[in-house]
Amino acid sequence: MTRFRCAIHIVPRRGILDPQGKAVADALHSLGFGAVGDVRVGRYVVVDTDAASADAARASVTAMCEKLLANPVTEDFEIASVEQA
Amino acid sequence: MTRFRCAIHIVPRRGILDPQGKAVADALHSLGFGAVGDVRVGRYVVVDTDAASADAARASVTAMCEKLLANPVTEDFEIASVEQA
Repeated sequence: MTRFRCAIHIVPRRGILDPQGKAVADALHSLGFGAVGDVRVGRYVVVDTDAASADAARASVTAMCEKLLANPVTEDFEIASVEQA
Repeated sequence: MTRFRCAIHIVPRRGILDPQGKAVADALHSLGFGAVGDVRVGRYVVVDTDAASADAARASVTAMCEKLLANPVTEDFEIASVEQA
């Protein structure tokens, strides 16, 4: 078993309202960042897990996203990286 | 001016307690993911902004992180990517 560090991006699904992103965009405009357009705010989760291989770690983390980390109705996730820790 | 899509990772600083990450790790253990070690939960922010160049977009987003997006006492940020949108 090897320890892998897996980074996950979880973002609001395209087309679903992102009030937190809208609030951040408005705040950036107020602070003088007038060139800012759309902002989307998601979660960045880093999971350290033991697995036999990088592929096994990726499969395990995908299952974690489907079961707990991401809301399948409103969010999309992607495994950004799987690296030996 | 070109539109750039900038992705930012904002994570709790190493050594600072991350109660949300601890809660997620405990929940994953309860769900049968016993191989999971440390979990850290941060934010993933995607900002679309107009800038003259990729370097200018990166500088602008760094200023946004310092002024609004990241808490300088408890969080670290990194610009994960700057791509033409």
